[in-house]
Amino acid sequence: MTKEKNVGLVQTEYFTFAQTPHELALESKEKLGPITVAYETYGSLNAEKSNAVLILHALSGDAHAAGLHKGEERLGWWDDFIGPGKAFDTDKYFVICSNVLGGCQGTTGPGSTNPKTNKPYALDFPLISIGDMVRVQKELIDYLGIDKLLAVCGGSMGGMQALAWLVNYPEKVRSAIPIACSLKHSPQQIAFNEVGRQAIMADSHWKEGNYYGSSLPSKGLALARMIGHITYMSDTSMAEKFGRQRKSDAQPFKFTPLEKATGKAGGDYLGEDGGLKPPSSSTVRGRGSPTGFTADFEVEGYLRYRGDSFVKRFDANSYLYITKAMDNFDATGGKLLSEIFKVISADVLAIAFKSDWLYPAYQSKEIVKACKLCGVHVTYCEIDSSYGHDAFLLEAKEETHLISHFLKKVASI
Amino acid sequence: MTKEKNVGLVQTEYFTFAQTPHELALESKEKLGPITVAYETYGSLNAEKSNAVLILHALSGDAHAAGLHKGEERLGWWDDFIGPGKAFDTDKYFVICSNVLGGCQGTTGPGSTNPKTNKPYALDFPLISIGDMVRVQKELIDYLGIDKLLAVCGGSMGGMQALAWLVNYPEKVRSAIPIACSLKHSPQQIAFNEVGRQAIMADSHWKEGNYYGSSLPSKGLALARMIGHITYMSDTSMAEKFGRQRKSDAQPFKFTPLEKATGKAGGDYLGEDGGLKPPSSSTVRGRGSPTGFTADFEVEGYLRYRGDSFVKRFDANSYLYITKAMDNFDATGGKLLSEIFKVISADVLAIAFKSDWLYPAYQSKEIVKACKLCGVHVTYCEIDSSYGHDAFLLEAKEETHLISHFLKKVASI
Repeated sequence: MTKEKNVGLVQTEYFTFAQTPHELALESKEKLGPITVAYETYGSLNAEKSNAVLILHALSGDAHAAGLHKGEERLGWWDDFIGPGKAFDTDKYFVICSNVLGGCQGTTGPGSTNPKTNKPYALDFPLISIGDMVRVQKELIDYLGIDKLLAVCGGSMGGMQALAWLVNYPEKVRSAIPIACSLKHSPQQIAFNEVGRQAIMADSHWKEGNYYGSSLPSKGLALARMIGHITYMSDTSMAEKFGRQRKSDAQPFKFTPLEKATGKAGGDYLGEDGGLKPPSSSTVRGRGSPTGFTADFEVEGYLRYRGDSFVKRFDANSYLYITKAMDNFDATGGKLLSEIFKVISADVLAIAFKSDWLYPAYQSKEIVKACKLCGVHVTYCEIDSSYGHDAFLLEAKEETHLISHFLKKVASI
Repeated sequence: MTKEKNVGLVQTEYFTFAQTPHELALESKEKLGPITVAYETYGSLNAEKSNAVLILHALSGDAHAAGLHKGEERLGWWDDFIGPGKAFDTDKYFVICSNVLGGCQGTTGPGSTNPKTNKPYALDFPLISIGDMVRVQKELIDYLGIDKLLAVCGGSMGGMQALAWLVNYPEKVRSAIPIACSLKHSPQQIAFNEVGRQAIMADSHWKEGNYYGSSLPSKGLALARMIGHITYMSDTSMAEKFGRQRKSDAQPFKFTPLEKATGKAGGDYLGEDGGLKPPSSSTVRGRGSPTGFTADFEVEGYLRYRGDSFVKRFDANSYLYITKAMDNFDATGGKLLSEIFKVISADVLAIAFKSDWLYPAYQSKEIVKACKLCGVHVTYCEIDSSYGHDAFLLEAKEETHLISHFLKKVASI
């Protein structure tokens, strides 16, 4: 892994399909079209078209997984993993990443224009599933002329998509790398998502989803993100990062609400560990105490900053639709573990992290168990990390070791 | 333990002190007065006044710990623990419970009338601390003519008060029973509280705290409560209680926001395990799918119900002040563990629960360590419960065994 090298300048590309009258039939039986997919590719497709790897992003990710956009300083969200000599070695593999259906970073979602009304879909956007996301990715792969993927890989919701690829298109994947994910959400995982959704819908600017062109439900979305960030870290990693430190610009304590978000897009990504930046919140009102209660805790400022910066780059309705797709996902399809991967010939590498309490290791072990019961060749590793769920983005060294060896083996077969 | 027997009809009483010009000096150096304390007592004080036990409630509790109020069906929040033959045996002990300073169930808090303005304090209420809560309890104990308490006991924030009694009034307590609590909040605990506070302050009805007499910040407070409830349960207990069950009244899925709370007070208490009641939420708007996505998950309905019912009995500003007091609490006072309990002669029984991830057992073990380093006689038990933090309210049998033996020993010395 050479962190210094990256794929250089990259550009997001767009592919549109499901034009009238060929709309795509979703799992819900509703139809949607046209559908545009934002995607990026890194490396080169070989003559046999056998070296393509599809990277699948998490809830708040996008197609920009590696390299740099012209004029921007921010590297792709998984740049540590994709590039020359990295886990997904672009000297060997052709790496593809696309924004998911329902998203807000170029792929059709609730903020896109509904051709029937010429207005944003808002809640007229149909409910989508993880299976639908993967269905759209399959269209992209077909369009790129790839018959079979060398690997599908992702963490968190990306891992759920990898599982959906295995189940829905077993003939299309030679291997899958589901990281820090689950066959289906537990009620605790659903509950955290639900509170995030309720926070958005409780925002008076949400207006039943019809906020496009007016004030955005920024506070609600920021709250959802704050809840998310707590679940992405571990008790230990928070203690190490923040302790009980007070904000350095010590002021008498005030009850300080979130600011209404303004300005242009920031650089806040799930797990992007951009260090502790002070919140820019203005103090609206409060009661100061001359002694004893000076200032907020650092962790509070951090969460506010994370919440505030998220609303500059993410659409609240996408948050509703995508989290609902995650909650509804069930890779078992109601079948026994011994049945779900029966027709699969792909190899599987499952990775979990010891301190991840949002997607605990027992959920990855269930994936492994299902593989074993179905005779699927599976490798499992539980990485001893203290980063919590964020570890899938941060433990580049350990993961690179596992992934690069696994891919080499799969590619050589 | 005979669950059937309770202390019968009880009545909340009120005690007022710190009248002008004798306002109480708070830890912050600000002054507050007059202060009214709502409290209840069960059992009889003996002639030596040596059998008094002070029960300390958690974030959303109140003075009504046991028995019944006239015309009501709801038993006190710790009725399983307080009564004839129970852990706090009212045939032997005189049991006292008071609502905390800053609360909204009879004791002076931000919703009380500010004598200087004849309007509710709102955010003009001074910041309070766990130490201030205990200071007020000490006034109550003095008023009741009790020089030394046989025991102070509470779970969660109640346990933090027990620790504050030990540190601030070591000569006033013969024993302390801190349950499922911490010497000080970790950043994760602070973070969950902060998101709850932000949810309240993001509600457009909050109006910088000045909502009294108009629409309440119900959605924000309900959200805070929903977040709380997730942290009070364990992954396991949620899986056992809800699984991935859908609501029984299966309808096509809609994005359903929280209702504005209406009606009178419900019976929702921290951890009161009142079974799964359906939410009364009205469907405001959404996109149904004819197949595949029928109805919400049971866990979603449960959380909405819990959130909605909480706002009928709790004041949002009290939630802000009390959670801030919890976050600011630090029983160490910045001292070494080997210093903090040095002057204590009280016996300590510390109880934690295996599946409690909000107040993990390692935090109770730190209390035990501090006791041992200071030569305090301490007993520790980690109860193997799957109920999470709620266990302190639910594991009556195990706790009763521990508490009744401990109290018998302390009382006999």
